[in-house]
Amino acid sequence: MSRVVKLAVIPGDGIGPEVVAEAEKVLDAVTSASDVAFEKTRFSLGAGRFLETGDTLTDDDLEAIKEHDAILLGAVGGVPGDPRLKDANIERGLLLKLRFELDHYVNLRPSKLYPGQLGPLADPGDIDFVVVREGTEGPYVGNGGSIRKGTPHEVANETSVNTAYGVERVVRYAFELAERRSKRLTLVHKTNVLVNAGALWQRTVQEVAIGHPDVAVDYLHVDAATIFLVTNPSRFDVIVTDNLFGDILTDLAGAVTGGIGLAASGNINPGGAFPSMFEPVHGSAPDIAGTGKADPTAAIGSVALLLDHLGLREEADRVTRAIEEDISERGAEPRTTIEIGDAIAARLQA
Amino acid sequence: MSRVVKLAVIPGDGIGPEVVAEAEKVLDAVTSASDVAFEKTRFSLGAGRFLETGDTLTDDDLEAIKEHDAILLGAVGGVPGDPRLKDANIERGLLLKLRFELDHYVNLRPSKLYPGQLGPLADPGDIDFVVVREGTEGPYVGNGGSIRKGTPHEVANETSVNTAYGVERVVRYAFELAERRSKRLTLVHKTNVLVNAGALWQRTVQEVAIGHPDVAVDYLHVDAATIFLVTNPSRFDVIVTDNLFGDILTDLAGAVTGGIGLAASGNINPGGAFPSMFEPVHGSAPDIAGTGKADPTAAIGSVALLLDHLGLREEADRVTRAIEEDISERGAEPRTTIEIGDAIAARLQA
Ligand SMILES: CC(C)[C@H](C(=O)O)[C@@H](O)C(=O)O
Ligand SMILES: CC(C)[C@H](C(=O)O)[C@@H](O)C(=O)O
Repeated sequence: MSRVVKLAVIPGDGIGPEVVAEAEKVLDAVTSASDVAFEKTRFSLGAGRFLETGDTLTDDDLEAIKEHDAILLGAVGGVPGDPRLKDANIERGLLLKLRFELDHYVNLRPSKLYPGQLGPLADPGDIDFVVVREGTEGPYVGNGGSIRKGTPHEVANETSVNTAYGVERVVRYAFELAERRSKRLTLVHKTNVLVNAGALWQRTVQEVAIGHPDVAVDYLHVDAATIFLVTNPSRFDVIVTDNLFGDILTDLAGAVTGGIGLAASGNINPGGAFPSMFEPVHGSAPDIAGTGKADPTAAIGSVALLLDHLGLREEADRVTRAIEEDISERGAEPRTTIEIGDAIAARLQA
Repeated sequence: MSRVVKLAVIPGDGIGPEVVAEAEKVLDAVTSASDVAFEKTRFSLGAGRFLETGDTLTDDDLEAIKEHDAILLGAVGGVPGDPRLKDANIERGLLLKLRFELDHYVNLRPSKLYPGQLGPLADPGDIDFVVVREGTEGPYVGNGGSIRKGTPHEVANETSVNTAYGVERVVRYAFELAERRSKRLTLVHKTNVLVNAGALWQRTVQEVAIGHPDVAVDYLHVDAATIFLVTNPSRFDVIVTDNLFGDILTDLAGAVTGGIGLAASGNINPGGAFPSMFEPVHGSAPDIAGTGKADPTAAIGSVALLLDHLGLREEADRVTRAIEEDISERGAEPRTTIEIGDAIAARLQA
């Protein structure tokens, strides 16, 4: 009896559809001989859809997406400065709305320097850590506003909201992950300035740590963490941090491990009440869309995270191994999006 | 007729006094033959003072400091985790209080890869940019709080406050600086998420840009900016950004240009209503205090910024040159704090 997984596919804008096509190719290859069938529904969402219909994410879209077991997303966002998108905020109205509505409180972002891969650091050492970024709180909640907008007396506020409920669940997840890895957890925050939110995060980590006596815990201010990411990235195993700091650290981590074209991510609802969503960390890069230059590796890596999340460990491992082999054999010669996807898929058929 | 400059000196904690001693040595050396006399007052402030007296920064301290023309600060902050400092927040109560009370709205942080200096990047290129970090607003204002503190129902908020008044003045300063440099200005923010504050910053930059048609303006999200700092730092000339993003970017920039031990900064009140304050970007590093390992170069670089701010351009340039020469001739052999200070001071007497 075969298992059916209902997958919502949101190719999105720019290079999104290009990298998603390769990710699907790899997904098909790895599942072709298994007894899991992926039943896919495509959702046309993003700047393109907004320009056609004026819709960003309707209630019907959202309800339909919720009927799925998981989501694969490429990238969303139009050409920066496009006047027709002036009043659209595709990021807030679509990407963040999905993360919030589907309660993706764990934004999981592994960073690994694959063998053979050269990052920008002269002496990177072994890099292999995971950032557990909170996904539903912090300065991302949209609790801000302006008074006297557009005048010399404008005051614009943004409020970061942090709850014990929200912090504790993501901190627990991070400790459990650390248990399965090298048992080192680093809290990153800015407790000396953001004293209220900082105290909540710090207290929570201390409390949850009691149940995990074998996990070594340390703390870094976010500014210091960026220093270590370029001077000693191998010190990290699991980083747990808030939504905004996680956003910043994972782009930097992506760069340090050879480029954002390799960085995969999962927006996870651990309880499973809502479908989790897997996407490359990079954006829609409209400047290179259509040129074949986009690297689909991050999207393919997101398929590995998706398979792992669905409990398809063997398939996940096979995709990860195929990516690692492909990367370690990459020559100086650039390949197209499709060539990279084909090469990785071929390793799975072999 | 000689000019007298009243200088408040705050050596602070940890390595603060050690690096300040070398900075003063260099200041004395460069002004010994000039007609400027520095009249110094020492202020005992920091974790040490707090532990002795329970005071962080009294109104009397603040009034006395205000009577000076400028401030030289080492670093403040006790040993992390010291239980006696649990309820003290030296950073907020002293360092940030000085920045806010003295209206240091420009936090000026140059980043330069000196000739001969190797940072962590394999191929750094020419790095020479300045971050103009806003110093009196943003998430640093201390407008936060907690309800149900310490319970499972705690909600901890932090509010970032941004005013047209505050943003405009720092943006103007950044444009004027860009005019005197390579005429490129990058706004860094997170306008797609922090939409209210982001719109204010973006509008202000667009408006001020009209008066500076020869300055090329671009925009980066803070996450993308960290990528460029490690993949193409020479793209930057002047970065203008908010208080928190500036904190993060300048530590990273310090690391990329060879270490936070070289990064100088000025907390500037451009109008001159209050004394400006010059300090290394690094902290009090209690772990290496007393070992002679602290690099005083950042503190000495802060003296160069201080001299420049006081209009003593020639003296400022001489200190900068002495630092550059010293750095370019540094061997692999580590030197002590005092040896580095002596070497730089000696170049000024020669
Ligand atoms: C597009 C943007 C809203 C998003 C974020 O800030 O979370 C992106 O940078 C990311 O990291 O996934
Ligand atoms: C000590 C701390 C409050 C301070 C800041 O965050 O501004 C420091 O990191 C800095 O950059 O000067």
